[in-house]
Amino acid sequence: MRPVIVSALHFSRVVIVGVGLIGGSLALALKRAGVVGTVVGVGRSAASLQKALDLGVIDEAATLADAARGASVIVLCAPVAQNFALLHALEPHLQPGTIVTDAGSTKSDVIVAAKTALGDKAAQFVPAHPIAGRELNGVEAALPDLYVGKKTVLCPLQENARADVAAVRAMWESAGADCHVMSAVQHDAVFAAVSHLPHVLSYALVAQVANAEDAALKLDFAGGGFRDFTRIAASSPEMWRDICVANREALLRELQTYQSVLAHLKTLIEKGDGDALERIFTRASKTRLAWGTERAAGNHIEP
Amino acid sequence: MRPVIVSALHFSRVVIVGVGLIGGSLALALKRAGVVGTVVGVGRSAASLQKALDLGVIDEAATLADAARGASVIVLCAPVAQNFALLHALEPHLQPGTIVTDAGSTKSDVIVAAKTALGDKAAQFVPAHPIAGRELNGVEAALPDLYVGKKTVLCPLQENARADVAAVRAMWESAGADCHVMSAVQHDAVFAAVSHLPHVLSYALVAQVANAEDAALKLDFAGGGFRDFTRIAASSPEMWRDICVANREALLRELQTYQSVLAHLKTLIEKGDGDALERIFTRASKTRLAWGTERAAGNHIEP
Repeated sequence: MRPVIVSALHFSRVVIVGVGLIGGSLALALKRAGVVGTVVGVGRSAASLQKALDLGVIDEAATLADAARGASVIVLCAPVAQNFALLHALEPHLQPGTIVTDAGSTKSDVIVAAKTALGDKAAQFVPAHPIAGRELNGVEAALPDLYVGKKTVLCPLQENARADVAAVRAMWESAGADCHVMSAVQHDAVFAAVSHLPHVLSYALVAQVANAEDAALKLDFAGGGFRDFTRIAASSPEMWRDICVANREALLRELQTYQSVLAHLKTLIEKGDGDALERIFTRASKTRLAWGTERAAGNHIEP
Repeated sequence: MRPVIVSALHFSRVVIVGVGLIGGSLALALKRAGVVGTVVGVGRSAASLQKALDLGVIDEAATLADAARGASVIVLCAPVAQNFALLHALEPHLQPGTIVTDAGSTKSDVIVAAKTALGDKAAQFVPAHPIAGRELNGVEAALPDLYVGKKTVLCPLQENARADVAAVRAMWESAGADCHVMSAVQHDAVFAAVSHLPHVLSYALVAQVANAEDAALKLDFAGGGFRDFTRIAASSPEMWRDICVANREALLRELQTYQSVLAHLKTLIEKGDGDALERIFTRASKTRLAWGTERAAGNHIEP
């Protein structure tokens, strides 16, 4: 007979600051995995906290100061521009032994915010970024399996205790995610290219069509290509405003490169240089097809 | 007892020039609707015509000259850059009473090609554009219901006989499409904005990521946003090379506007002007959400 293995992973009190899609899904995943005692929600809107309580996503709603008392882990899931103010408000109430982590899409800025706002307690902050989302926002959109098979990037600080990094990793793994470690600078460059820039480009196209004199006609004849290209333009404006500002250095570098690529394509179209256009399109098409095939074959199937 | 209505619509011989996704799907749809006698395929590749025969998409393969004899309708479904050469080769064999039409994504260029290549017979050419597609190409990707619930745009010439326009409309309606009439100039402007420009933008982003030093890392961490934004970058490079060149005037106008929109967003990001960014993102997000809701509620559900 095999011995029964009882998992040692248990967070007695997890505080979710910002109980929307990202924070709510983490709460549901941790509850389903049976690794959490009490989930405490902190948020700006009483109505949305009440909804989170009604949906069973959180067990209690509290102020940040009250929530911090006895917390095992505090997870910042609000739009990233709020992180500095939240960390600053948290600092006097942050007890030794409590881990603070986040779920933001940008990492260099939150590390600066943590070092500034937490001072000596900054070593308790373990930066993280789960790579998952939906075009829907709010706690109603939260799903217990949002993170299953998805990646979470950890960008540990030199100051972090190994056990704290391991605990954050274990938390995300219990939610179903695969964890990867990289530097904050590398993280921000990668996501500027494959996530933040596409969001800006998609918003820009929809803004252009919406501002056209014949917007209604254009939208009426927009098809499947437009639908997929612009799906991310339905994302939370507040969240993406914050990401653009928080990761502006890396984003501006990618944006500038993109402007050059586009100017080159424009010149080729002006000249009617079909051969050169086809070479560029072929390389892109092969890259995209290979990426899609690899995704479908691996454990990276997206929702 | 109600009388049995026998549909008067019947095309004894339909010629599909270019038997890939678009032409093959039309052939399958017309066969399923029972409105066609013989489907004849014309193409550059003997292997692909053989595949179309094996799959039952076409009944015969022939040269353009042989196929044209006794044809009811000839549908040009090859990449649009080939239309002039095809029409030029067709002209000596084009019999009175045969309708020529096309399925290309650009309309002004094919009208110029038809008027030049067909001369006095140009009145037999009825320009059309079915708004449907998949990211897969080739006759293996053809589906009998590709056009069901989709739009087909007709851009009739002043010279066209009303009965010929009605026949082309009836052909697409029997394939399941809803037909709409607009001018070629209007058509080209609309599709430059909502289809051709997004394709160029999507190819450009994948080209940029593929050319980055850390391309592998970036692709490894690309998620659902990248997937949807770049789905159309897997489209046929030859087809999109041709569309970019064929519709270059309208496309360049949209591309120039897009460059201005992007430059404005870049300035706002540089200045960290979150309020202005949020206003633009909010307008885009609302437009996209309303569009999606309308699509889901209407008869416009995309594959």
